[in-house]
Amino acid sequence: MAEVVTSLQNPQLKRLVRLRTRREREAEGVILIEGARELARAGRAGVEVLELYLCPELLSPEAVALLPEVEGQARRVTELARAAFEKVSGRENPDGLLGVAGTPTPRLPDPGDDALIVVLHGLEKPGNVGAILRTADAVGASGVLVLGRGADPYGPNVVRASQGSVFSVPTAVLDEDEALAWLADHGFTTVACTPDADAEYWDTPLTGRVALLLGTEHAGLPPEWRRSERAVRIPMHGAADSLNVATAAALVLYEARRQRRQPGG
Amino acid sequence: MAEVVTSLQNPQLKRLVRLRTRREREAEGVILIEGARELARAGRAGVEVLELYLCPELLSPEAVALLPEVEGQARRVTELARAAFEKVSGRENPDGLLGVAGTPTPRLPDPGDDALIVVLHGLEKPGNVGAILRTADAVGASGVLVLGRGADPYGPNVVRASQGSVFSVPTAVLDEDEALAWLADHGFTTVACTPDADAEYWDTPLTGRVALLLGTEHAGLPPEWRRSERAVRIPMHGAADSLNVATAAALVLYEARRQRRQPGG
Repeated sequence: MAEVVTSLQNPQLKRLVRLRTRREREAEGVILIEGARELARAGRAGVEVLELYLCPELLSPEAVALLPEVEGQARRVTELARAAFEKVSGRENPDGLLGVAGTPTPRLPDPGDDALIVVLHGLEKPGNVGAILRTADAVGASGVLVLGRGADPYGPNVVRASQGSVFSVPTAVLDEDEALAWLADHGFTTVACTPDADAEYWDTPLTGRVALLLGTEHAGLPPEWRRSERAVRIPMHGAADSLNVATAAALVLYEARRQRRQPGG
Repeated sequence: MAEVVTSLQNPQLKRLVRLRTRREREAEGVILIEGARELARAGRAGVEVLELYLCPELLSPEAVALLPEVEGQARRVTELARAAFEKVSGRENPDGLLGVAGTPTPRLPDPGDDALIVVLHGLEKPGNVGAILRTADAVGASGVLVLGRGADPYGPNVVRASQGSVFSVPTAVLDEDEALAWLADHGFTTVACTPDADAEYWDTPLTGRVALLLGTEHAGLPPEWRRSERAVRIPMHGAADSLNVATAAALVLYEARRQRRQPGG
């Protein structure tokens, strides 16, 4: 690691800043992964980090602990001075590690007998998409389908909000027709989560192959997706008229898991 | 509304910027409430808006719809030019409404027979505290106790993340001893949510007077709170080692609600 980049005019830095836009990442076929935990999870999931940028002065204790693992997975390591790192970081408190990796190959969920998957329609807030990926990982879901041009599931803010779970949970971006066909081919029961449903989610059978459909908080799901086999709502008791979509996802996913549990297991 | 503030050097603007710090708000005994929805919810909960700052050019459709209600609740209205409003706003996309209100009187929860409350220990991220308040409102919880010097529940980012639910859900900041005494006096069963618990949350009785205790994702709960009558964990099936604390709160609160529901009701 002979190289240390200090000049803010360095062309490598300018490219890293440009890679914060989806267009530039798609043109190069790469993604940005910032943070020690996220880089470690990506590596464990087999994502190859092509370039690792490192600022020793900024390393957090967690980053120091994970550094050997993260550095060992990177093809090329470049040291950045503090001001240079802060220029390319997307975080308020960067931990001194930023990677450029090839865009992961989309992975469709394994449509096993008890597959539980999430289908996201038009979700734009990276924080919500990332939070849902993190919960999907925690609940042991088989995968996440992202429809159309909502948030880029490999965008830096989704990677961050998912804490790297986007690399461990099978995730694919499909258009709506592809997704509907795939779900039908594999015998999924589609369950739309929508405030105008009659049934409460905890009274609805959620076992077998289940695809949970979630739309945006404002627009909800389009009509063709609302005609799902089942529709569930989350009871609301307060002044607020809706829950955050990631909270709603967690409630229904964990209810599905509760219904699937082995007593005493 | 004769006045229109355009100068960025205006002393009123400088004061509004200073009020973004907790110290300044506490010194004046006021809070900031930004956003049409948040201001409307505050007004409906009886919070008096002393000063309303309004930028007609920035008003969102929702803000236009709520403006008569919000303006009607405000004692004094001042119009700001766009640049002036953007200087005092804490949002990326402001909707043109910002209020200064007296700090709400802390309200302890109503400790009824079936009271379900949340106790937050040391949570610092305003987004998490706000999300928990929003969920507490949705699930119909009796209130939220915030212990010690974590996030200010009336800080602008909590108000925003809660979408104003902090005004409808009884909320009080207590020190630890006060909270423990209050919970004991009112016969609450304390239920700690912690990853090292043996029981899964869905196998644990959560009816009656229940206080759900939540700590930070990193530090968890201190030992005296871990010695709760009950401890529950949320099963984790993936590569991630924890859920977001607001997600965990939602799961346990809604499980408590599920256990309390009337069949068919």
